[in-house]
Amino acid sequence: MSWLRNLSKFSNIKSSQRPNKTDPFFLLPSFTFLSHFSSQPIEEKPSVKHIEYASSLQPTKPHEKPRVVVLGSGWAGCRLMKGLDPNIYDIVCVSPRNHMVFTPLLASTCVGTLEFRSVAEPIGRIQPAISREPGSYFFLANCTSIDAHNHTVHCETVTDGEQTIDPWKFTVSYDKLVIALGSHPATFGIQGVNEHAIFLREVYHAQEIRRKLLLNLMLSDVPGISEEEKKRLLHCVVVGGGPTGVEFSGELSDFIMKDVRQRYTHVKDYIRVTLIEANEILSSFDDRLRLYATKQLTKSGVRLVRGIVKDVKAQKIILNDGTEVPYGLLVWSTGVGPSPIIQSLDLPKAPGGRIGVDEWLRVPSVQDVFSIGDCSGFVESTGRQTLPALAQVAERQGKYLASMLNKIGKEGAGHANSAKEIKLGDPFVYKHLGSMATIGRYKALVDLRQSKEGKGLALAGVLSFFIWRSAYITRVVSWRNRFYVFINWITTLIFGRDISRL
Amino acid sequence: MSWLRNLSKFSNIKSSQRPNKTDPFFLLPSFTFLSHFSSQPIEEKPSVKHIEYASSLQPTKPHEKPRVVVLGSGWAGCRLMKGLDPNIYDIVCVSPRNHMVFTPLLASTCVGTLEFRSVAEPIGRIQPAISREPGSYFFLANCTSIDAHNHTVHCETVTDGEQTIDPWKFTVSYDKLVIALGSHPATFGIQGVNEHAIFLREVYHAQEIRRKLLLNLMLSDVPGISEEEKKRLLHCVVVGGGPTGVEFSGELSDFIMKDVRQRYTHVKDYIRVTLIEANEILSSFDDRLRLYATKQLTKSGVRLVRGIVKDVKAQKIILNDGTEVPYGLLVWSTGVGPSPIIQSLDLPKAPGGRIGVDEWLRVPSVQDVFSIGDCSGFVESTGRQTLPALAQVAERQGKYLASMLNKIGKEGAGHANSAKEIKLGDPFVYKHLGSMATIGRYKALVDLRQSKEGKGLALAGVLSFFIWRSAYITRVVSWRNRFYVFINWITTLIFGRDISRL
Repeated sequence: MSWLRNLSKFSNIKSSQRPNKTDPFFLLPSFTFLSHFSSQPIEEKPSVKHIEYASSLQPTKPHEKPRVVVLGSGWAGCRLMKGLDPNIYDIVCVSPRNHMVFTPLLASTCVGTLEFRSVAEPIGRIQPAISREPGSYFFLANCTSIDAHNHTVHCETVTDGEQTIDPWKFTVSYDKLVIALGSHPATFGIQGVNEHAIFLREVYHAQEIRRKLLLNLMLSDVPGISEEEKKRLLHCVVVGGGPTGVEFSGELSDFIMKDVRQRYTHVKDYIRVTLIEANEILSSFDDRLRLYATKQLTKSGVRLVRGIVKDVKAQKIILNDGTEVPYGLLVWSTGVGPSPIIQSLDLPKAPGGRIGVDEWLRVPSVQDVFSIGDCSGFVESTGRQTLPALAQVAERQGKYLASMLNKIGKEGAGHANSAKEIKLGDPFVYKHLGSMATIGRYKALVDLRQSKEGKGLALAGVLSFFIWRSAYITRVVSWRNRFYVFINWITTLIFGRDISRL
Repeated sequence: MSWLRNLSKFSNIKSSQRPNKTDPFFLLPSFTFLSHFSSQPIEEKPSVKHIEYASSLQPTKPHEKPRVVVLGSGWAGCRLMKGLDPNIYDIVCVSPRNHMVFTPLLASTCVGTLEFRSVAEPIGRIQPAISREPGSYFFLANCTSIDAHNHTVHCETVTDGEQTIDPWKFTVSYDKLVIALGSHPATFGIQGVNEHAIFLREVYHAQEIRRKLLLNLMLSDVPGISEEEKKRLLHCVVVGGGPTGVEFSGELSDFIMKDVRQRYTHVKDYIRVTLIEANEILSSFDDRLRLYATKQLTKSGVRLVRGIVKDVKAQKIILNDGTEVPYGLLVWSTGVGPSPIIQSLDLPKAPGGRIGVDEWLRVPSVQDVFSIGDCSGFVESTGRQTLPALAQVAERQGKYLASMLNKIGKEGAGHANSAKEIKLGDPFVYKHLGSMATIGRYKALVDLRQSKEGKGLALAGVLSFFIWRSAYITRVVSWRNRFYVFINWITTLIFGRDISRL
C-alpha cells in the first residue's frame, strides 16, 4: 500500500481548505475477506505472466448453499439462470461474454435498423443474484476442461489481447454443472472461410459487418476506383439460405433500397446482394412460404444462386463448377456443428458429436452434470432424435432444467453426489411451436406447423411481419431493451438508419 | 462481367416459376459515367497492391460549380460544411471519420450514461448535398500533403487493416481549400503514453475505455486474484485536470456510486478514481467554481493529486518525485498540440506550430487556402492572440468562413485564383461565451464570464447541471440524436447504465 500512502500528498487546495483525513478512500471498510477464495501467497510485486496459479473457487460446505456452475451465456444458459432460485443455489456463470445476444434480431443490427445494445442483455439483469449474492459470480473466462470425477471445471480468463492484464487460470468446484456452451459455425473444411468470411452469431460479428459495409460504400466512391473494383467492393455475398442468411439478405436489401439510395447516391447502382445456397432456401418452411420468400427476395434485388462453395479467397469465392464470385463483403451462415471444446470433453457423445444426455438432460455415467442447448443431444439409447439447433429448443431446455434443479434443491439434494436417489419427475419433451423469418420490405413468414409434414397455420406477408415483430418484442428479456428495440424501430422509420461508422 | 453472367444459372424455383429475364440487376441503368473522374486504363483483373494510381478529382471547369475541399470533420469543418450553400459550391470532404463527434458529451459515453451513436453525427446528415449532389463527395481518407501552387491535395484512403482492400492514393483539385484538421493530444514527450494510455477525443477512445473498465471489473472478481492486483485493476487514473479530465472523473464516480455498487457488489470497495494534474484543475474557471468542483469531486471519492508524470509503464505510472502509481485504466487528457500533418505542411505558421492565418482566416502567401479550428492560429503580423482550442472557437470560425465563402461565390469569385480583388467584409472576431463542465452527481459549473479576469455570472450546482444539459441538448446537431440523448438520459435514470461489454 506504499503507493497509496504516497498519493496522499494532495495539495490542490490551499492548506486551510485541504480535505481532512476523512478522505473517502481512508473511510472504506477494510476489504472483505472472501472465504470461498484461496490463492498462493502473494509476491510483493505480482507478475502474473506465465505463472499457473492454483486459484480456485473451493467446494461448498454442507451448511452452505449448493453451487450450480453454468458454462455459457446463450439462450440455454441464460434461461436456466433466470429460472434458478437464488435462495436455493449459488449461481456461477463462466462465459467469454457478459451478456446474452438476442439472436433473432441480430441481423437487423448489421445495417442499423436496430442498435447493438438493444439486442444484448447483460447477465446481471437476467439473474440479478449473480451480481448481488456473495456466493454467486460471473467469470469472464473460457472453460478449458472439465474434471467430472472431482466436480471441478478448469477456466482461463479472457483478456482480449489487453496489454495490462495477463490471462489467469483458475478452477471452480461445482455441486451441479450445466454445460451450455453452444455450437460452432460449420465451415465444412472449406479453406479461407475463417479468414475471410464473417459469421453472424455474436454482436461483434454484426459490428464487423456494419463497419465493413460502410467502409466499402465509402471507398467505392473514391476517384479512380475502376468499375470492376467498385462492383466487387459493393457485392455482398451471403452463403447459406437458412433463416439467418435470408433475414440478413432481406435487411441488406432494405438498407440498399431505402438508405443507400438516399445517402450514397453516387454508388447506389453498383451495390448488389447474392445469396448462395447449395439446396433450397428456408428448407424447414412450408413450400408455399418458401416460394413466396424466393419471389419477394428476387423482387427486392437479392440474386439467389444455387451453388456449392469450394474455396474462399480474400476478394473472391470459387464455386464447385469453377465460377469465380468477387465480393466485398462475405457473410457465412451455413449452420452449426460441435465446437472444439465440446469435441475435446471426455464425456458420452450423441450422434453428430454433441454431448450425450438422457431424457432428463443429464449426462450419463457422471454425477451432477447436465447439458442443454446446441451442444447437447440425446444419447442413442434414449431412441430420441437430435433436436434442431434452435433458440426455442435451448430456451425450453433451460426452463425445464431450472425447475428440475430447483426441485432437486428443495428436496435437499442440491449438493454434489446427493441426488442419486431423487425422483426427477417428467422427462423433457420438446414441442415445436413453429418458425418465423423476415424477408425484408415489412414482410415475413410465419409457419406454425409442428413439423414439415404437419398441418397448421402458415402465413406470409405484411401481417406476418407484424406478428414477427410483436412476438419478438415481447420475448426480449428486459423492459429496457424492449423499450430500445421499439425506439430503434420508430427512429429507423422516421429518420432512416444510422450510417456513422464508429 | 463473366462472373455475373455465370451467376445467372439460378435454379432454386421450379422452371415454370423461374423469374423472367427482368431480373432487377439486368434492369439497372447502365453505369453512369462520372465526368470528374479520370483514371489509368483498367487491367483485366485489377491488382491494387503497391501500384500508385494517378487518380484524381480534376479541376472544375469555368461553367461548373466551384469546389470547396474541406480537410477534417470536426467542429470547424462540419460547421463550415453545414453553412456552405450547395447551390453555389460543390463540397468535398476528406476525413478518416465519416461523422462529427459531439465532444462535450463524449465523456458520458465511456460509462454508458449515453450511447456512442447518440454523440456521433454522420456528415451526410450535417450537409446532405455531400451524399446527393453529383459533384459533392465524402472521401474516407487522410490528406498526406497539400500542393498549394497547383491547387491540389494528395490523399490516401483509410482501410483500417481490412484484408480485402488496399490503401489507394488519389488527388483532389480545389477551388477553395479549408484546412480544419484539428489537433493532436499533447504527451510532452513522455514515454509510454501513446502505448498505454487512452485519450478521450474520438468515439473509439470512449469505446476502448468502456470495454477496458468492464473487463477490469469482471477480471478483478476471478478466484485467486491478489488484493494488490485487484486494487490495481480497479484503479482508474486520469491525467489532466481540464474540463475533459474532470468531466470523465465525475462520470466515473457516478458510475461507481450507482451502478458498480449495485452490479459489481463483490468488488465495489476496490474501485477508485485518481485525477492527477500538474497545476490547478479547471484553471480557466472562476476560483470559487474551482473550489466547489474540488470539494464535490473529493466528496464523490475522486482523489485529486498534484503531480507531474515522468514515465508511463504498462501497469503503473511514475511521477516526478518517484512515486509509483499502479493503474488498471489510464486516461490521458492534458491538452492538445499541432498534429504531425500540420507540422509537415509547407505553409506559414503561427506561434505554437499552428497554421498561420490572417484576420479573415486566410493562409497568407498562398491563394484560396483557409484554415480554421484547433489547427490554425493568427500569424504574428496580425497582432492577435492565439485562440484556445475549444469547440466554440472552431464552430464560430466555421460559421464565419461559410458565410464569407458563400459571399465570395455569389460575387462570382468562387473559382480558383479569382478572388484576389474581392472585398471580404468584416474580419473574424471571437467573443467567448463562457465555459461549462459537469462534475458528477447532477452538478455542473457554468462560467459565463468572457475572460478569466472579466465579470459576469458564475454558477455551480444542480441548477448549473440543468443549464449544462439544456445547453448541450439544443446544440446536438440532428433531431435524431437530440431524441436519442434525451432517451439515453431517461433510461439511465430509470434503469441504470448498460453494462454489457460489446
